[in-house]
Amino acid sequence: MGEALKGYSWQKNAYLETEMLNATPLIEVWRGEFLESQHRGHAVVCNFEGEIIEAWGDPEHVILPRSSCKILQALPLVTSGAAAAQGLTARHLALACASHQGADIHSQLVLDWLGQLGKTDADFRCGTQWPRDIPASNHLVKTDQSACRYHNNCSGKHCGFLTLAQHLRAGPEYHEVDHPVQIAVRAAFEEMTGETSPGYGIDGCSAPNWACSIAGLARAMARCAAGGADPLGKAASQLRDAMMAHPELVAGETRACTELMRAAPGVALKTGAEAVFIAIIPGLRAGIAVKIEDGATRASEALIAALLIRLGVLEADHPAALKRLGPIHNWDGLQTGQISALL
Amino acid sequence: MGEALKGYSWQKNAYLETEMLNATPLIEVWRGEFLESQHRGHAVVCNFEGEIIEAWGDPEHVILPRSSCKILQALPLVTSGAAAAQGLTARHLALACASHQGADIHSQLVLDWLGQLGKTDADFRCGTQWPRDIPASNHLVKTDQSACRYHNNCSGKHCGFLTLAQHLRAGPEYHEVDHPVQIAVRAAFEEMTGETSPGYGIDGCSAPNWACSIAGLARAMARCAAGGADPLGKAASQLRDAMMAHPELVAGETRACTELMRAAPGVALKTGAEAVFIAIIPGLRAGIAVKIEDGATRASEALIAALLIRLGVLEADHPAALKRLGPIHNWDGLQTGQISALL
Repeated sequence: MGEALKGYSWQKNAYLETEMLNATPLIEVWRGEFLESQHRGHAVVCNFEGEIIEAWGDPEHVILPRSSCKILQALPLVTSGAAAAQGLTARHLALACASHQGADIHSQLVLDWLGQLGKTDADFRCGTQWPRDIPASNHLVKTDQSACRYHNNCSGKHCGFLTLAQHLRAGPEYHEVDHPVQIAVRAAFEEMTGETSPGYGIDGCSAPNWACSIAGLARAMARCAAGGADPLGKAASQLRDAMMAHPELVAGETRACTELMRAAPGVALKTGAEAVFIAIIPGLRAGIAVKIEDGATRASEALIAALLIRLGVLEADHPAALKRLGPIHNWDGLQTGQISALL
Repeated sequence: MGEALKGYSWQKNAYLETEMLNATPLIEVWRGEFLESQHRGHAVVCNFEGEIIEAWGDPEHVILPRSSCKILQALPLVTSGAAAAQGLTARHLALACASHQGADIHSQLVLDWLGQLGKTDADFRCGTQWPRDIPASNHLVKTDQSACRYHNNCSGKHCGFLTLAQHLRAGPEYHEVDHPVQIAVRAAFEEMTGETSPGYGIDGCSAPNWACSIAGLARAMARCAAGGADPLGKAASQLRDAMMAHPELVAGETRACTELMRAAPGVALKTGAEAVFIAIIPGLRAGIAVKIEDGATRASEALIAALLIRLGVLEADHPAALKRLGPIHNWDGLQTGQISALL
C-alpha cells in the first residue's frame, strides 16, 4: 500500500484554500504518441481509524464534495427515526444517496415517495433538469413534454429532506441553510469528517454543500465502511448497504457509479460534480476520496477505477474499468488513444 | 500588451513533449467563496511577423490542434484551384472550416455539396455522429431515425477533402495519411506553422491531425490574419473571410465560435476538441492559440474570450462573453459561482 502517512492531525479544522497548486498529475489522455491532455488532482485512502494510508496531491486541500457526500447528507434521515417512521426501504435509502438520471425506475420511486408524504413536485426546492436517461429523454421529446423537478438528479435526496422536514414538523423551505434539516445535515457531516466545515457553497439543486478537506471526506467514507455501534455508524452502514444493494438506483444504466459498483461488489461508490468521487470499502474498512483539480468527470472516474484496481477490489480488464481507464475510440470506432493513470 | 517576448526561434522544429508541467493556472471556477476547480494551460499571441507578443505557460508545448486548424486543412482546397473549379461559395468555404452541429442549415449545405460532386453519404470516411443541434436531434428522435455521416461535425471538412480528391483524380480513401489530399494538408500546415510536424494523431473524424507547438499554431493564425500576396496567404484570407461572413455555419446557434464571432465582428474563431481555441484578428494582423492542459472546453472558451477582451476586440459585458466568463447558475437559476480568468 505504499508509504503510510501516519500522524495526520485528525482534529484539526479544515481551512479555506485559494490555491491548489500542489495537485499532482494523475490521469493522462493520449492520442497516438502524443500526451494530448492531462488531469491533476488529489486522492486520499483512509482506514477505519481515520488514518491516511495513501495520498496523492494535498490531503488537506479543501473541496466542496458536491453529490459525493449524499450518504452523509442522508444520515439524519435515518438517525432521526424519520426513515423508520415512514417505513422507507433500502430502495428509498439508495435513492436518497443517488444522483439518478431520471429513468423510469428513478422517477416512479420518487413520485411514489412524494405521494406517500402527501407532497407534490411543487414541494421540491430543486430546479428542473432534463433527464440524462436516453429512453426517458426520448419519451419527453416524442410527447412534447417538459422536464419536471422530479427528473432532477437530486430529487431522491430532496425526498429525504422532505421526509426529515415532515418528521421534524419543520417548514417547507428545507433547502435553506438555517432550516432544521440543513442544520442536522451539517452536524452529521462535521461529525463524520472530523472537521469543522469552513463554509458552504450552493449546490446545483439549491441545497447547501458543506466544505471539508479531501482527507476529511475520505475519513468520513472510512467511517461509513467501518460502520459501528453508535447511531451515526449504524445509519451509515444501513445507507451504504442500500447503495450496494441497488446500484441501478444510485446513478443509472451506462453510468460510472452503477457500472463500477456492479463490477466491484461490496463497494459503495458515489460521484460528485466537478470531479469528486468517493468509495466506501467495508471489506477493507477503508474510504477513498478523489478530487480532480479541473473538475473533469472523465478523470475522476478513471482515477477511482485505478484506485479500486490498486486496492484489489476491481479487475483491471473488467469492461466497466476499461471504459474509464483504457482505449479511446472515435466516431467510427477506431482506437485513437487511451486514458491511463499515474499511480 | 505586457512584456513582449522577442527573439523566439521561428524556424526551430517542434518537439514531442511528454510533460506539460509548465502549464499555468489561467481559468478559475468559483462556487461561493470557494475556488472549486481551476484550469491550467498555455496561450500565445503572435503578430504577422510570427513573433510572440504575449504568452502564458509554455509556447513551445506541442499539441494536436484538432479542429482548431480546420482553416489550415482547407488551404489546399483553395490553392489547388479545386474550390474555384467547383464554383464553391463563401458558405461552402466556411463549412469546410467548421465543426458544425448538424442543424438543418449545415446538413442541407453538406448534402447539396455532396450531390454537386456526385457523391453520397457513403463516400464520407468520417463516422456517424448524433447532431448536437436540439431541433435536429428532436426531429431524429420523433421520426425514429438514426444519425448519418453528414451529421458528423466534420462533414464540411470532409466535403472539402472529397472535392480536392476529385480535383486531383485521387482515390476514395482520402483520410489516409499517404493520400494526396492529406499530403497536401500536411505541406500547407507545416508552411503556415513554420515547423516540421513531429507527427500526427487520428482525429475524431478519422483524418490525420498534425501536431505543432502552440506558438506554431498562433503563428499560422497570425499569417491567416495578415493574408498576403502568395497563394497560401490569399487562400487563408479567403477562408478566414468566409468564416467571418458566416459564423452560423462555423458552429451553430448557442455555440461559442458562432456567438463570439457575432460579438466580435472582424475576428475569425475556431474551437478544437480537448480545449484548443484559435483566433484570427485581421485588424491587428494577429493570431492567438490556446490549449487548456486538461482538455476542458469551458476553460478554452473562457480563455479565448478573456484574450479577445484583453486585445480590445470583445466587450467584457457582451452576453456572449459573460456566458463564458461570468456568473454560473444552477438548475433553478440561482447564481452559485463564477468563472474568471487569471490574465
